[in-house]
Amino acid sequence: MVRATLAVVALVALVYPSSVAGLWPLPRSLQTGSQALTLSSSFSIDSAFTAPDDLKSAISRTLDYVRKDKHERLVVGRGSADASKIKSAPSLNKLSLQLESKTPLSIAQEAIKPFESRDESYTLTVPVNGDAILRANSTLGLFRGLTTFTQLWYTAGDAVYTIEAPITITDKPAYPYRGLMLDTARNFFPVADIKRTLDAMSWVKINTFHWHVVDSQSFPLQIAAFPELSQKGAYSATEVYTPEDVKDIITYAGERGIDVIVEFDVPGHTSIISKSHSDFIACPEAAPWSQFANEPPAGQLRLASPSVISFVQSLFSSLADQFPSRYISTGGDEVNLNCYNKDADTQAQLKKNGQNLEQALSTFVLKIHSTLKGKGKTPVVWEEMVIDHPVGVSNDTIVMVWISSANVRAVVNKGYRVVHAPSDYFYLVSGGWVGNNIPGNSWCDPFKTWQKAYSFNPLANLTAAQTPLVLGGQHLLWAEQSDPSNLDSIVWPRAAASAEVFWTGANQPSGKPRNVDEALPRLHDIRYRFVQRGVKAVALQPLWCALRPGVCNLQA
Amino acid sequence: MVRATLAVVALVALVYPSSVAGLWPLPRSLQTGSQALTLSSSFSIDSAFTAPDDLKSAISRTLDYVRKDKHERLVVGRGSADASKIKSAPSLNKLSLQLESKTPLSIAQEAIKPFESRDESYTLTVPVNGDAILRANSTLGLFRGLTTFTQLWYTAGDAVYTIEAPITITDKPAYPYRGLMLDTARNFFPVADIKRTLDAMSWVKINTFHWHVVDSQSFPLQIAAFPELSQKGAYSATEVYTPEDVKDIITYAGERGIDVIVEFDVPGHTSIISKSHSDFIACPEAAPWSQFANEPPAGQLRLASPSVISFVQSLFSSLADQFPSRYISTGGDEVNLNCYNKDADTQAQLKKNGQNLEQALSTFVLKIHSTLKGKGKTPVVWEEMVIDHPVGVSNDTIVMVWISSANVRAVVNKGYRVVHAPSDYFYLVSGGWVGNNIPGNSWCDPFKTWQKAYSFNPLANLTAAQTPLVLGGQHLLWAEQSDPSNLDSIVWPRAAASAEVFWTGANQPSGKPRNVDEALPRLHDIRYRFVQRGVKAVALQPLWCALRPGVCNLQA
Repeated sequence: MVRATLAVVALVALVYPSSVAGLWPLPRSLQTGSQALTLSSSFSIDSAFTAPDDLKSAISRTLDYVRKDKHERLVVGRGSADASKIKSAPSLNKLSLQLESKTPLSIAQEAIKPFESRDESYTLTVPVNGDAILRANSTLGLFRGLTTFTQLWYTAGDAVYTIEAPITITDKPAYPYRGLMLDTARNFFPVADIKRTLDAMSWVKINTFHWHVVDSQSFPLQIAAFPELSQKGAYSATEVYTPEDVKDIITYAGERGIDVIVEFDVPGHTSIISKSHSDFIACPEAAPWSQFANEPPAGQLRLASPSVISFVQSLFSSLADQFPSRYISTGGDEVNLNCYNKDADTQAQLKKNGQNLEQALSTFVLKIHSTLKGKGKTPVVWEEMVIDHPVGVSNDTIVMVWISSANVRAVVNKGYRVVHAPSDYFYLVSGGWVGNNIPGNSWCDPFKTWQKAYSFNPLANLTAAQTPLVLGGQHLLWAEQSDPSNLDSIVWPRAAASAEVFWTGANQPSGKPRNVDEALPRLHDIRYRFVQRGVKAVALQPLWCALRPGVCNLQA
Repeated sequence: MVRATLAVVALVALVYPSSVAGLWPLPRSLQTGSQALTLSSSFSIDSAFTAPDDLKSAISRTLDYVRKDKHERLVVGRGSADASKIKSAPSLNKLSLQLESKTPLSIAQEAIKPFESRDESYTLTVPVNGDAILRANSTLGLFRGLTTFTQLWYTAGDAVYTIEAPITITDKPAYPYRGLMLDTARNFFPVADIKRTLDAMSWVKINTFHWHVVDSQSFPLQIAAFPELSQKGAYSATEVYTPEDVKDIITYAGERGIDVIVEFDVPGHTSIISKSHSDFIACPEAAPWSQFANEPPAGQLRLASPSVISFVQSLFSSLADQFPSRYISTGGDEVNLNCYNKDADTQAQLKKNGQNLEQALSTFVLKIHSTLKGKGKTPVVWEEMVIDHPVGVSNDTIVMVWISSANVRAVVNKGYRVVHAPSDYFYLVSGGWVGNNIPGNSWCDPFKTWQKAYSFNPLANLTAAQTPLVLGGQHLLWAEQSDPSNLDSIVWPRAAASAEVFWTGANQPSGKPRNVDEALPRLHDIRYRFVQRGVKAVALQPLWCALRPGVCNLQA
């Protein structure tokens, strides 16, 4: 009898340590106490240095969140049992930000540094008495620490409080790339939806917005040098991203510690360009589409054509000027050979060039990459460009693995750095969308739950020496069945799962492996906080379960 | 060469008849022309009789929709090609409503008549010259016709127009029950969300809101005679439906031609009652839950206890007074025998009563049904009450089949009327929600697409003589992973599929069988209309496909 009781107590302590509260992602190192501490009504955040404007704004948002989240603890009674503790608790008057530099770079400037020199580390101490201190090497680190700070506080009546003071956190990401990909071409997303998504990303320390901005279905990006592309290729005159919109998005992202990596996916996925440059596209809207593309409409850039290459180089040059990120993606997935084999123009050009298709593809890609390098950019490609069509991209190229997580090893074995974007873990879509497909199933089925994503091991099948080649990873939203109607609900909170996988790494601060049992209560917590902040993340369980950690587990 | 061309033309005409435009559900009989007609800027709707207030409001909403939908035709160019037609088109000044009665009943009164005497039929004629006429036998029929009328119109610039005049529609539903079930107990839905859903339901002529209002996880329904149930059982003091809220919802539904059938699911699915009446519930929150219930928390009404029976009768009596519908559901799914077998109290009571469990269940259910019949109500039950536990409910009882569509025949063979609610076609949920279930799959997988629902045959495996026993059917939203965040996106437009299955019946107006190819362009249409009206229905395809009917089909 006594043994059984002890076992139960031990189990509860093991699985649901109260010492992680609602933090997401988990910090790398964390100590908490068990004392109550309230936020003073005059609570303020100050800095001993000249804060750049975007840090000032971040401070202001932090104050807003801690006051306005109005998030009650997810326990039966919603924190009413904390009332007496709160009543006698000391209060925190100030959070002081500390930085070595007196005239630091902005968050936005830090956010676009190369991965190897980007510093997101910070330490945060919240004592029971005295001021809280947030220290970092960069404004970007301070911003990450402010984000953590907002997750420490709960509301009960008028009080904003924690019951886990004192708190000491030393934190930095396990991986430098933690992203979210959004496709804005299958269906259009207004700037406001993208901004709301950038906010949500920053709340879980995602630092990369991989913007798959155009595709075969539409070309919403207005490019000053090529206005005809969006004039003829956008869904409408209002469903476009103007240069001002792009600047606005980049600025908004930067202020939130997010690098915007734009993708112009070539040579496939470009059918819509035929509307403005019919001579540039092979097999435009050819039928049956399934013989010419993985989805309708078919259509690919005539990659062997000198004028096409020149056009694409010029377009990438333009993008390179527009996007300050060090990184830019040239795509390269799902090149359909049949489209080129049946395109007389391409065949004639190949003959003229004395090249076969693979050679022409290599020339095409390497010329574009050369243009990008001339602009100081590092290219990013989909896995096909090193596995299916080894076109010879240079070893600094970053490779995104999407077809299967099993392909990572092959890419790493070739010495490339990888970003995990596997469909078998991180695809937010599921289900078929072609019209007369009655079961509606597809290659993307089944639905990838947060638990599945959370169980992803970034280092699976790799040697210790290969570890540094893993930059991180991301969830991805292909928008065939998404638009603003379901953006929040299809992305959140699932994308938070990869955010923690790549920030926290393999283990909890305790040294124990991360696991879904421990994670679920915290994911509930951040999900309800998302909702309070206006992002419609979906419920993971009945509230009854969210208030009773572990009780709705399979074996409970 | 000629043959091939002809074949293509024939195919296009077959699959995408322009003569159905954006109507959803398809009317039973439809003739359209090919002339343009605009809505006059002074367009009005009048009636030669004294319109009840709710019909007046419906007229006002109709005028709003036709003016404010601002829905452009889903074709390449979005109707810009219609400009010249529109310019020279006659305009419609008036829609006249006609009814036999000079002092008709309200829509709400008609909407709660018994199925057999409920009349939703109407005829609508929209001539090229002269007034449009909407004629019906009831205000409910007029309301259905007004709903159809709103779907005739598109916007181009300032014009509101159709290119299919003249239009003649004769319409009535194939089945009297076309529902949507919402579970408001696993997670709470505020009144505003329910009202928005009722609006959306009415747009596709769904006429029944099956309100699964309470369950084991929470008891949000305030009942005047038993205030303790929601006081102790609601998620919070604000997550409740007050008697005023209920009245508000019933009124709002009635004005939109929707009958509200409330369900109090007994004897299972009642764990939360233990919070206010601990002596009424067997195995409350027993662990492991999987031995005592199909989902946590376990807990069932002590069905053999006279005081429990008396309490439940009294509660149903109260519900019968509160809800004007002729129908009320006593639930009865997933009764867990182990819970009762291990409950000493129930075992003692059975012994005292000289009954076994099945006999006690029968007594329990029949006493409740007797109470309901005394109040003029017809009971509704889940299929277990006639298949797994044939408790002897009377033959007028309506049976909802949910476990599998294959079970319909067994129910009908016993002579009961059925409502189709099969998990294999109409469940809006998918995926597991228990905590540590890494694949996340569940009994509810895979995701049921609109195509799957649309392919449902209400008469499968039934004899012609059994046909009248099929009342209709409905989609169902169990809310373990839903709340206001994803209500619209998980329900719409999928629930529109069953709305058409049960309104239109097996065939298109042409006599050809309904099919997903023909339906998809119209479903896109109504989906975009939903979005324009503020309901966040999800995109079914890239807009590129929505603008090009058939081109994104599997074999296109």
